[in-house]
Amino acid sequence: MSIKVSTLGNGLRVVTDNMPHLETVSLGLWVGTGARHESDREHGISHLLEHMAFKGTRQRTAQQIAEEIEEVGGELNAATSMETTAYYARILKGDEGVALGIIADILQNSAFGRPELEGERQVILQEIAATRDSPDDIGYDLLHDAAFPEQSVGRPILGTPESVSSFTAGDLKRFLGRRYGPGNMVISAAGAVRHEKLVRHAEALFGGLTDEKRTTGERPAKYVGGVRVSEKPFEQSHLLIGFPGPSYRDEAFFTAQVFSGLFGGGMSSRLFQEVREKRGLCYAIYSTTWGLRDAGMFGIHAATGAGLMSQLIDVIGVELKRAGDAPPTAAELQRSKAQLKAGLLMSLESSSARAEQLARHLLTHNRVLSNEDLMAKVDAVSAEDVRDFAAELIEGGLSVSVVGSGRRSRKFAERAAELVRN
Amino acid sequence: MSIKVSTLGNGLRVVTDNMPHLETVSLGLWVGTGARHESDREHGISHLLEHMAFKGTRQRTAQQIAEEIEEVGGELNAATSMETTAYYARILKGDEGVALGIIADILQNSAFGRPELEGERQVILQEIAATRDSPDDIGYDLLHDAAFPEQSVGRPILGTPESVSSFTAGDLKRFLGRRYGPGNMVISAAGAVRHEKLVRHAEALFGGLTDEKRTTGERPAKYVGGVRVSEKPFEQSHLLIGFPGPSYRDEAFFTAQVFSGLFGGGMSSRLFQEVREKRGLCYAIYSTTWGLRDAGMFGIHAATGAGLMSQLIDVIGVELKRAGDAPPTAAELQRSKAQLKAGLLMSLESSSARAEQLARHLLTHNRVLSNEDLMAKVDAVSAEDVRDFAAELIEGGLSVSVVGSGRRSRKFAERAAELVRN
Repeated sequence: MSIKVSTLGNGLRVVTDNMPHLETVSLGLWVGTGARHESDREHGISHLLEHMAFKGTRQRTAQQIAEEIEEVGGELNAATSMETTAYYARILKGDEGVALGIIADILQNSAFGRPELEGERQVILQEIAATRDSPDDIGYDLLHDAAFPEQSVGRPILGTPESVSSFTAGDLKRFLGRRYGPGNMVISAAGAVRHEKLVRHAEALFGGLTDEKRTTGERPAKYVGGVRVSEKPFEQSHLLIGFPGPSYRDEAFFTAQVFSGLFGGGMSSRLFQEVREKRGLCYAIYSTTWGLRDAGMFGIHAATGAGLMSQLIDVIGVELKRAGDAPPTAAELQRSKAQLKAGLLMSLESSSARAEQLARHLLTHNRVLSNEDLMAKVDAVSAEDVRDFAAELIEGGLSVSVVGSGRRSRKFAERAAELVRN
Repeated sequence: MSIKVSTLGNGLRVVTDNMPHLETVSLGLWVGTGARHESDREHGISHLLEHMAFKGTRQRTAQQIAEEIEEVGGELNAATSMETTAYYARILKGDEGVALGIIADILQNSAFGRPELEGERQVILQEIAATRDSPDDIGYDLLHDAAFPEQSVGRPILGTPESVSSFTAGDLKRFLGRRYGPGNMVISAAGAVRHEKLVRHAEALFGGLTDEKRTTGERPAKYVGGVRVSEKPFEQSHLLIGFPGPSYRDEAFFTAQVFSGLFGGGMSSRLFQEVREKRGLCYAIYSTTWGLRDAGMFGIHAATGAGLMSQLIDVIGVELKRAGDAPPTAAELQRSKAQLKAGLLMSLESSSARAEQLARHLLTHNRVLSNEDLMAKVDAVSAEDVRDFAAELIEGGLSVSVVGSGRRSRKFAERAAELVRN
């Protein structure tokens, strides 16, 4: 077994997967905190904090941070999601100390200087503006708002121009202190990495970090559902449909993935075949599963011209009903499972995907799940499980968003909502 | 050396790179043909042909093609660029025959049925509509039109709604016959693949293919330059600037890459530091090198609010002049080279990137360049080379496109054009 896990005295976990044939390392620190842990007046602070981490510490300016990692040919990046925030690097063998040293500094000694904060606000306002130019982003933001209204899990991760403009250095420090405790962090690395050496680095760089007494700040997510529309005109209309789905901690999440694969996953899926291949009704159509610790959503996304939208909605409606009425064929079930299992194997060949998977397993399950375990759970899903899942899904309360058709957007949204209700 | 190359009797080349630690294979067929080989009335036919390949053969329906590859957990995809068209798969070890069998069938026995052609036209019209919703796509299309006007290399690869609507099955067959000869094809695979076995598969599946006497259909690309504007309103204004750059076959292409890295590549680059980090003038800004067999372009892309655009243009202007006036510092040069070389190493760890690189080397250079060769060429670039490159660049005739600011777009484009002229 090439995977090793250690826990520092302060609770911070270190996990590595040695891939001896590689010359590079993917390494990062994952924190079990994200946009869902923000109070109403903190909306967007997780993401701002992630940005501000790169804007200078007591020892390094923003420019020095960038130069130090790029001097060794490394790449440093970060990402904020609903439940996690990750700071990660890809580097050459032997440079783990450089990457982890920078990550340790930017998370423990950030300066949060006033000019840097003002500058970065402006950067994020532009990042938010870019999402307003993307019908996909508008559609997903509206869908999440419909599914989880007035909850942190239903809000855009970037925050709003107003909220981003309101935060002070003190707000950032308080959020950091409350959520970035060592018990809530995992350092994960895959590739040409030696476990013991990385643990020594971690001990030296993070050993002094202590957990403040912290509130979890995590309220249960409650799926509600509803209809949202944007009349902003685009060339294409986007239709997004959501249903309450399982948490990623739920065994049913595997059923959801098998169903999503055969319903709207690859080229052989029902939606791709019926909507695109047989009828030419769109370029892009697919289904997704989105999981949280305690909730989830099954989603469908299609984009096409307004003139084809009604026909497209009707085909999706027929397919949703059919999925709830009868189990998939043995061939469909086999194909979806084969794709899921091959995808697991393929992801193991990427050091960055491995490092991320290990961190997520530890944050979610407090242990690393083996690939064999995951495959067995995929294999255990039956055709009847899939039918029952689909039948329950469409009873669960619909969320719909439509973007891009001007005034016709509302009409399309209502048509989509009706079809599933009947 | 794990790389092996064979040539079939008809001239088709097979290249493999065995990566014994992997459980999967990335495999594909690259054809040395793309959008630049289209006559004026063929605009978009390369891309339509790539789509129609998946729409059924004499032996298989579109659905059977999709099912056959996904049954073994594989993924099959294709992409059309200016000079190449690729059909590629990612599969589990041992399934090379399945993937190559499908690729052989769809390239040699496509049915081009009338209902399939009508349906796929509609799909591509939606794909084109999606690009009209993307300010990035609009900006790049306009920039390429300004740089290479009235030439196939300056046109959108997808074609226009009119051209895509005009093609018949006969047009597709003629283009296929003219461009898809075995001497113009490379089968490339990396991962858990055995060379001799793949060559046997290739011989059995493609051995009967012969080259028609073919015209090259490739006219020299001629950089012209100019200004293009879209007044379509978006939240953000996009500014794209282009200069004539070297072909990827030119030694100067390495100088262009080193310059691009330190000028607008990573986080430590001049544009990122001066425009984003110090002034907060945008979220996204970067430079690129784009190469063809006989021409190229160096590009800059930034997106920001209209209110910040004039200031952003001025900073880019200052940085362009500075780059032509003085060589970069030793530290800048070293960082850019380190990033390029690390990027080369990292790409070798991905089987799909390796397979693509091998195919491109054979199509471009008729041999596989070693990583050591590539690194030595990067190392050979001097600070003076970079300064001379930058000085020559800004003399070479500007292309500008601006998108998203309504009537102010033209004003911004003119300001950008002026700055570099002075």
